[in-house]
Parts: sequence; structure tokens; C-alpha cells
Amino acid sequence: MARPVIALLTDFGLHDHYVGVMKAVMLGIAREAAFIDVTHDIAPQDIVAGALELEAVVSYLPAGTVVLGIVDPGVGSERRGIAVEAGGLTLVGPDNGLFTLALNRLGQGRAVELREPRFALPGASLTFEGRDRFAPAAAYLASGIDLAAFGPSADQLVAVDVPEPFVSAEVVVGRVVRIDRFGNLITNIPRTAVPLDGRGCRVEVGEIRLDGVVPTYAASRAGTMCALFGSTDRLEIALNGGSAARRLGGSRGMPVQVRWPDGA
Amino acid sequence: MARPVIALLTDFGLHDHYVGVMKAVMLGIAREAAFIDVTHDIAPQDIVAGALELEAVVSYLPAGTVVLGIVDPGVGSERRGIAVEAGGLTLVGPDNGLFTLALNRLGQGRAVELREPRFALPGASLTFEGRDRFAPAAAYLASGIDLAAFGPSADQLVAVDVPEPFVSAEVVVGRVVRIDRFGNLITNIPRTAVPLDGRGCRVEVGEIRLDGVVPTYAASRAGTMCALFGSTDRLEIALNGGSAARRLGGSRGMPVQVRWPDGA
Amino acid sequence: MARPVIALLTDFGLHDHYVGVMKAVMLGIAREAAFIDVTHDIAPQDIVAGALELEAVVSYLPAGTVVLGIVDPGVGSERRGIAVEAGGLTLVGPDNGLFTLALNRLGQGRAVELREPRFALPGASLTFEGRDRFAPAAAYLASGIDLAAFGPSADQLVAVDVPEPFVSAEVVVGRVVRIDRFGNLITNIPRTAVPLDGRGCRVEVGEIRLDGVVPTYAASRAGTMCALFGSTDRLEIALNGGSAARRLGGSRGMPVQVRWPDGA
Repeated sequence: MARPVIALLTDFGLHDHYVGVMKAVMLGIAREAAFIDVTHDIAPQDIVAGALELEAVVSYLPAGTVVLGIVDPGVGSERRGIAVEAGGLTLVGPDNGLFTLALNRLGQGRAVELREPRFALPGASLTFEGRDRFAPAAAYLASGIDLAAFGPSADQLVAVDVPEPFVSAEVVVGRVVRIDRFGNLITNIPRTAVPLDGRGCRVEVGEIRLDGVVPTYAASRAGTMCALFGSTDRLEIALNGGSAARRLGGSRGMPVQVRWPDGA
Repeated sequence: MARPVIALLTDFGLHDHYVGVMKAVMLGIAREAAFIDVTHDIAPQDIVAGALELEAVVSYLPAGTVVLGIVDPGVGSERRGIAVEAGGLTLVGPDNGLFTLALNRLGQGRAVELREPRFALPGASLTFEGRDRFAPAAAYLASGIDLAAFGPSADQLVAVDVPEPFVSAEVVVGRVVRIDRFGNLITNIPRTAVPLDGRGCRVEVGEIRLDGVVPTYAASRAGTMCALFGSTDRLEIALNGGSAARRLGGSRGMPVQVRWPDGA
Repeated sequence: MARPVIALLTDFGLHDHYVGVMKAVMLGIAREAAFIDVTHDIAPQDIVAGALELEAVVSYLPAGTVVLGIVDPGVGSERRGIAVEAGGLTLVGPDNGLFTLALNRLGQGRAVELREPRFALPGASLTFEGRDRFAPAAAYLASGIDLAAFGPSADQLVAVDVPEPFVSAEVVVGRVVRIDRFGNLITNIPRTAVPLDGRGCRVEVGEIRLDGVVPTYAASRAGTMCALFGSTDRLEIALNGGSAARRLGGSRGMPVQVRWPDGA
């Protein structure tokens, strides 16, 4: 069997032992596993932010990867724990929409509810299901236990509501959904919503008007703003050599418009 | 032999190369090793905080794990370097109390002083013993070298003084010892110090009075404070959907009292 | 073949999925690989800071390690991507000087320009070459593919300009080049520039005058400043039990002088 790979995304941060103790539990079950930390810096309980980051990585994960995703405001409540097989991956975590965007990319899957106590820690708590329930399930799945053994089929998974851009012939109106470390403002406008890769367009954000979409950060002059399709194929606003977020005072939710002043 | 597992806890942070260079040294000795980063975000030289985080994970580490724990205000001084075998784990680091709480959980062990120069880097410095002395010792131990080879027996290990709660028939008085990323205030009051899992009690912290102890975060109303036994079985104060620390202006050392207004 | 080891240094931070997605790509190619995160907290686009951190670790990396180093203000531009074999390691990243100091330590190497599209992701973007081009190259190199297969020889690598100290018989004038998590001010003054390990010298920084160089942090009194040769054998200014940077208001570039008031 190929080496088990487990990718983790949480809102646990790295200040506490929470991520470490989950890895301890998983190596106790799947000692050969490799871990990929997608990020643990999702803002506490921000399901949409977690869903966007998972969407950005799923196409790049090795076949057979188990994704342990935990952003879980409902920990300890009646919300289900699930495992979903889709597109060659298996996603494990709470049923609260965290996997919605990833599953859109991965295609149709089969889901089960995590109910089998054999695959949780003995005396599993209700305050840290990541450690006691999701981590062991992920490790057993990565070890090759069949999905069906974990519990009954689950349907009607909870879906998260991510804002979609408004698209017409004259204008595309989206918004900033993510700001990265470099201060790039990443919008919800996919490349496919912008005809001709943005040739002849004008991008409007705050007080700024940008003519056209450039192919790379380096194609704009140093110190100037630009619009481009970033690494997840969404329109983003960047400042060559600086932080667009700081320059613009930009924040999540900020509107971004694409227009064709001379007709497209 | 099972794959070597090495768990790391330090106050080195992730800004510098310090953790990375220790892993480099260890993979040079134990190339198959897996690492678990418990946390590197212990406040500089805060031995008690490190001891509490180690206590929280030791029961979950796979058998045979070597724990490399370094919070070391006395680096370069005469304080001893030690390795301690207990409860199926081996702890490596400075003899300054960092392992006190972990060893309370793991039970009686045998300890040696790290003196054998073969198991340190040649020309080991006195300014970065983590890299030059503790990391190689951890890797050699993880590779299966017997503890006795590292130096003479060490007894009377230094113990850290962690505040214990005051417990009487009418009241338990503890304090906040840790604040986590979610703003939960974790106290030094163990579940065992609170009769009946807190039924009928009143928890007092700052200006707040909380009736009883809830089983999960989700059992309290959104936006309200609650008291519960957290994932390390200590009483904690939480705010459902927010940060109790921010709401209360709470900080480490803050007193928390459990009373039984109607008698227990 | 020994297990592939890949060391990563970037300015990507850990907030976004950027480091995680590169590891996903690499495990897809070299599933047995071990990763060493040197640091991802280089300030955005600060090539000199990255070069200094790489310099500090290269001597400690296991033989055969592939170093993936990405601090890349010119991403998407005409600047070359390179791989350099030297001293038993292979360095992969942009040709912008990030590797200058590491190569000074590793000695003469052979370099190629990364041009072979077989070793990049299909449809490689110009906005995230780390994921699409450098990560796959690193993983293929770690898997044992010969350097020559990646592209034509590259010479005249770009070199970064790191400030060197001024050294005369009476004085050494350097500056702070790095401040670490503990608030230690690390200078560009190597041990070799200071005769007699600093015996009889006076170190001047800001308003502070320090007599001599101590062998360890612990050799100075608690709460006092000291000068010592740190773990990378450069002169540093430290505060026993505190942060020299905070005490001094120190910042990168701050001058540090070593004098011999009574003649050396």
C-alpha cells in the first residue's frame, strides 16, 4: 500500500497543543503516515474561509489523501461527523459545509456518518472531537479501512453559502473573499466569468480604477496596483512590491467590479 | 523496529530557523523519524506553560515516542541535560521542571544525565544546546540506543512549582493557568476536585456568576459564558461563539471559585 | 536509496494554503519524502533575510537534502529558476541571490536553469511558480533525477549584497542583520573578525557599552545585557532573561562597534 497521506486544515492555530495531539493520535494508528498542514490559521469558526482554502488545495493532493478538516462551531452538538469519498480523496470532519467547495471540485461522492465507536478513542469527549473522534477516523481511513465500516450512509450534507459574483454582459460584480499574507485581495470572480481574460476591461475597487488584467505581478510597474488571475484562477488585486490590502484599506466583503467601458 | 517518532515542544517560535535546524540534525541521525510539533509558541522561558502543554499530550503519544522539550532559561549554565524513560516514552531536555507534570502522569521512570559526547554534535556550543546536544540525543534515543549509554543516573530532578487549587467542602479556589487560541480560560481545577461533575455548583470568575457546569460548549446559548470540563479534564470558562478571555479581560493567574450555594 | 529529505524556506507564512499545497505537489511525486520547514516567516520579499536563515542551516542538513527556497519578488518575470548542486545538497528556487550565502558555505557547485517542462506541473502558472515549477522540480530532484535533465547549465548566478563589517586593527564596525524571537540582536560580525574571542574588547550599541564577550547567556547577570558569539558564530547582543531588542529599541541595520580601549 502507498504511504498514507493525511492533510489537515483547522482553526486551532499553532499556539496550543491541539494540532500536535491530533497528530499523536494519528501516528498511534497509522505510524507511517505523512502529514500536510494546509493551514491551521483559519479564523476561529470561520467555515467559509476554511472551505475556500480547502477548495484551493484539493486538486493538488496525492491520490488517496485523507483530508481532516475541522472548523467546528458546533463541536459537541447534534451536528453529524462525516467522511466523504470523492475524486480519489476522503474528507473527514463535521457536517457543516466546510467541504462544500472542495466537493464541487471533486465531483459526486459517497458519504457516511461517523458512528462506529471502534474508530474513536475510548471515552471520547464532547469538547475535543478533533482529537477523540475525527483524528482517529482519519487515521483508520488512511490505513485502508473501508468507508462503509464507519457508519450509515449520510445524505443531504449541509452546504455552506459562499457568495457568487453577479455576472451580466456589461459588468461582473464580485467581492473580496480572502486576503493573503502578501496583502493580495482575492475575489470570488473566477476566470471563466470574465470574457477574453479581461482584455479591454476596467477593474474598479474602492477609489481605484485599473485598466485591464495583467498576466503576472511582475508585469505591472513596481509600486503600482494591478488586477490579475491568481493561483486559484480567481481575479485578485495586488500591489507589485507591497500590500494591496494596506494600500486600499481593503477587507473581506469589499466589492470589486469589472466593466467594459467601450463594450466588450 | 517501528518508525521512530519524535515530539517537539519549545519556546523557539517559528520565525527563526531554530526548530528547522534541530529537525535537520535529527533526520541526519534518524532519517526515518516522524515529527510531531506539540507547539513552539510557549512564551519565551515560561517553564510552567511548557509543562502544562506537555502534560496535555503525553497520554496520547504513540508508544516509544521521544519527547524533545526545550524551554531553557539556563541554556549554557551548569543545569543538567537529562533523558528520562517513563511510561513507554523518553523525555529529553534541560533539568528545570519542564517535565514535572508529564512525569506525574507517566509514573515512575529512570533518568540519566546527558554526558556522553558521542551523542552530541562535535564542537557543541553553549548557546544552542537544543541543536548541538538535545536534538542529537533525542535522535539517537529514537534510533534505539539504550538510555544507559548517555550518561550516569540522575536523581532528584528539578521540579516545577505549579499552583494547586485550594479544595474544601464548601469551595474550590483555583486560577486560570492557560488561555487558548479560542479565548477559553483553562484553570488548574481538575474534574476530580469538583464533586458530582459540578451539579448544583456556582462558578465565579471576575464579575461573572455561572450556574452549574455544562457538558459541551454547544450546551450553552450562543453568546453566553459557560463553565465546563475541557479536553484536559480541567475546569474552563468559555464563551459560546466568542472569546471568554476578551469578554472578561481575563488573564493568567485570574482566580476562579466553585461554590455550592445550597450545600453540596 | 535513502529517504528523500526536502527543506523548505519561504516568505509565504502559514496563514494561507501556499506551503501546504507545495507539500501536496511534492508528496504526489516523492511520496516517501520528509520535510524540514526552516521557516516560512521571512518578511515578504526580503531576500537578504532568507539568505541569512539558509546560511545558518545548510551545514546541518543531511547529505542529499534538496532545499526549496522561495523568496521571489520577481515571480512571473524573466528571472531564471535554478537548481544548484553543491556540498552534497541541491538548492532549488529563483535566481535572485537567495542562495548566495549558503553557496559561500557549501563551496563550488554546478547550476542549471529549470527549463524542462516535464518537471513542472502541466499548465504551470506565472503567479505561483512555487507550486507549479519549483516544488515539482525539488521533488523530482529528491527522487534522484539527475540535475542535467532539468535544463541547460546556468552560470553567473545573481548574488545578493549582504553588508560586510568594516574591520581594522582598532575597531570592527558591523550592524544588526537579524533579530530573533528572543529579542537577540544578531550582527554581521563573525567570530573570525574579532581577535582573541573578544578578550579585552568593548562592544558599543546604541547608548550601551559592554565590557568583553561572554561565553553563554547564563554567564551574564539576569536582567543585564551581554555580547556573545551566538549559534551561528556571529556576535550578538542579548539580554539575560529578556529581549535586548525591546530594551534597546534595536532594529535591523543598527550599528554595533567592537573596540579595544587599551589596545588589543
